[in-house]
Amino acid sequence: MAGIAPEPVSALAQRLRQGSTTSEALAEAAIAAIEDPSGEGSRVFIEVDADRIRAQARASDLLRAHGALPPSPLAGLPVSIKDLFDVAGEVTKAGSVVLADQPPARFDAPAIARLRAAGAVLAGRTNMTEFAYSGVGLNPHYGTPANPWDRAAGRIPGGSSSGAAVSVTDAMAAVAIGTDTGGSCRIPAALCGLVGLKPTASRIPLEGCYPLAPSLDSIGALGRSVDCVATTAAVMAGERPQPVVPVEPAQLRIAVPRTYVLDGMDAEVGRSFETALSRLSEAGATLVEVVLDDLGKLPELSAGGGIVGAEAAPIHADTVARAGDRYDPRVLARIEFAQKLTSADHRRLLRRRAELIDAIAGECFGFDALAMPTVPIVAPLFSEFDDDERFGELNRLLLRNPTVFNLLDGCAISLPCHEPGAAPVGLMLGSFGGRDAELMRVAATAAPIVGPSFG
Amino acid sequence: MAGIAPEPVSALAQRLRQGSTTSEALAEAAIAAIEDPSGEGSRVFIEVDADRIRAQARASDLLRAHGALPPSPLAGLPVSIKDLFDVAGEVTKAGSVVLADQPPARFDAPAIARLRAAGAVLAGRTNMTEFAYSGVGLNPHYGTPANPWDRAAGRIPGGSSSGAAVSVTDAMAAVAIGTDTGGSCRIPAALCGLVGLKPTASRIPLEGCYPLAPSLDSIGALGRSVDCVATTAAVMAGERPQPVVPVEPAQLRIAVPRTYVLDGMDAEVGRSFETALSRLSEAGATLVEVVLDDLGKLPELSAGGGIVGAEAAPIHADTVARAGDRYDPRVLARIEFAQKLTSADHRRLLRRRAELIDAIAGECFGFDALAMPTVPIVAPLFSEFDDDERFGELNRLLLRNPTVFNLLDGCAISLPCHEPGAAPVGLMLGSFGGRDAELMRVAATAAPIVGPSFG
Repeated sequence: MAGIAPEPVSALAQRLRQGSTTSEALAEAAIAAIEDPSGEGSRVFIEVDADRIRAQARASDLLRAHGALPPSPLAGLPVSIKDLFDVAGEVTKAGSVVLADQPPARFDAPAIARLRAAGAVLAGRTNMTEFAYSGVGLNPHYGTPANPWDRAAGRIPGGSSSGAAVSVTDAMAAVAIGTDTGGSCRIPAALCGLVGLKPTASRIPLEGCYPLAPSLDSIGALGRSVDCVATTAAVMAGERPQPVVPVEPAQLRIAVPRTYVLDGMDAEVGRSFETALSRLSEAGATLVEVVLDDLGKLPELSAGGGIVGAEAAPIHADTVARAGDRYDPRVLARIEFAQKLTSADHRRLLRRRAELIDAIAGECFGFDALAMPTVPIVAPLFSEFDDDERFGELNRLLLRNPTVFNLLDGCAISLPCHEPGAAPVGLMLGSFGGRDAELMRVAATAAPIVGPSFG
Repeated sequence: MAGIAPEPVSALAQRLRQGSTTSEALAEAAIAAIEDPSGEGSRVFIEVDADRIRAQARASDLLRAHGALPPSPLAGLPVSIKDLFDVAGEVTKAGSVVLADQPPARFDAPAIARLRAAGAVLAGRTNMTEFAYSGVGLNPHYGTPANPWDRAAGRIPGGSSSGAAVSVTDAMAAVAIGTDTGGSCRIPAALCGLVGLKPTASRIPLEGCYPLAPSLDSIGALGRSVDCVATTAAVMAGERPQPVVPVEPAQLRIAVPRTYVLDGMDAEVGRSFETALSRLSEAGATLVEVVLDDLGKLPELSAGGGIVGAEAAPIHADTVARAGDRYDPRVLARIEFAQKLTSADHRRLLRRRAELIDAIAGECFGFDALAMPTVPIVAPLFSEFDDDERFGELNRLLLRNPTVFNLLDGCAISLPCHEPGAAPVGLMLGSFGGRDAELMRVAATAAPIVGPSFG
């Protein structure tokens, strides 16, 4: 089968260092997977320039051969880029058709510049929910890549970083970068069987990234391992990537909320989630069931369009006026629904958010992380979304748990916790803002326990 | 003649964009100049890997051809690197022989990483005064590149960034980076007819740069124009380089100290300096002669070895104990002389420095810059340095004026202000810490006025 070998970036990087593969070989494998007419490539990428990928890979090999490639775990590896990042010379369309007439970006977004400086091969612009405004991943303009699980039946990949997830599962990139305003990295990771990371928002500058809701937007990554996403996030944060060292499982003290985040959980997710908790417990971790009534108050922050709507509506006002008829109607409907929110509403929502962060952080004091299913259901069939009302219900269900950590201004990671071949299920571990390094250690400890085939 | 065309980086960058030259052609021209047996290449560079330079240039051309080179005015241009910067995979020797057995640097210094991210071709490690500890540029281990002026007679290039200066004058690099603790970028620039910039120290991280005296060290650049050095400094500072826009000369208000900085000025420098002032005045600038008695107190900060000695001595203690006999005796003598300074002396010197900064800044309020000769004498003959006492006198005279702005924690630039073919003379414009952007505008305005053949 075409494509990059399904190995984590650390293994691919080691093979490049040892000379048992080349960046050009990885690029050709990725391009073959992308161009495979029986594959999802045409729906995974909105834009891909095979010769540009090849040129970057050849330049990387040339520099490596002469000792002129700076040491970086991403050097020479194909990294797919969500369509909403500015890449110098490319038009930032954010999954829409209404921005196609805009001039190309003059500069790389800082996150992109740092990936490039780390020697990553920028490997195409990935498909997404238009303007990142849903957790489903459907895109009426560019098609929607199918979930790698149960592909014959046809299931959603999750979103908004839909192409990002399938670019990795289908071996078209070693790792993918996305954004996450309410779960857009973690939902597709969970539904597609990958690790998905939403770092603390302030770690990675949002400059040069098409905004959805600046108070909640963050930049993250999707990959095959905790190390893959931790490394990629560190590079984008301008930090020097360090290997994530697990701790003893007995050192873990994890809070498991029994309200709100388990509502509407389907049997398959329930089974995988409870198995994951049992395994953690058997490995020695302390799991404490907690009642966090304040979690149930978080929907206040999404009422009437909420913080996301209050921030998205003015951002889109001019574009809607100019070209609203070419928006995805479901995205347009959400923007228009939020237009009645005033700036006083917005300020009130942000004040209420700060109160709830304080309250929930106080209740969670002393825990290393909160654990919950990333998404309470397995990936629904495409056909379930024919109905607008059902679309709304499912979208809310997909977004609910991941959004907890955007609203808390925290960090969170989704780890695969299903049996190989079964419906992908994500175990989400989340924490509060700035505790990313600690969360990565928790995740690196938990990943091989809850998903022994994925760790 | 071999070498890169003597054009500023903006012109070379434009030729690369237009396709009228390639990075590989520039690299080959630079390599030809370096390898010319009748040239200074073997003394300009301590280490140079022609194939590594070629590989970087070819990679740059490949990326450019496929639109994968980020927009940067340094992309594809050979930039020489002073031997004291960490470059991943290379041993940082700082112009000495005693560090040759150290392991190669594992990471690029941030300044180097940023140059690399901007697409610069790292073009060899340039010679320098051992450990940057003199303004003369003589190096007993690796030879000393001759000043481009009056090469038959043999004159010092100035230091400590001696190779940096001659790498540019002799067309082996488009621009050079150096460090400046007491004039090490500006002295060789002035003596060799280049522009030399010492930015405010805090703009560019000193991490990964072999220290001389951390309180006074700064990272700077030497090049053919104000734009060359401003661009290079901006890249190393992690800023987005912007073209420097001159102002109306009549807007300039420049203070000209008439004490201290003119002592010991030779006739040739006096002539060029006064001509430069006349031209500025005729162009409409307001020049105000000022008496700054506090400048005369600055030597207090260098007494007994001063701040530089108090910081250099402990940095070198272990290396001197291990291999003092392989130091340049003149560098060793300065380190040993300073060993009697206590840490109480050091603290007292730093307190006194802060007082003098406050006093002098107060007296200079309202001026855009101070103007003075960078160095009060033209480049002395090599033969003048045979005598240790004369070496000491000349070294102090070379360092005196540039050191003003290191002690003031300011920024300063040296501009060529001599007639073509005559002895190079530098006009130094200096200002206080953080006023770099303003100083660049002053310098861009003044440069074509004081050096019409260089501007």
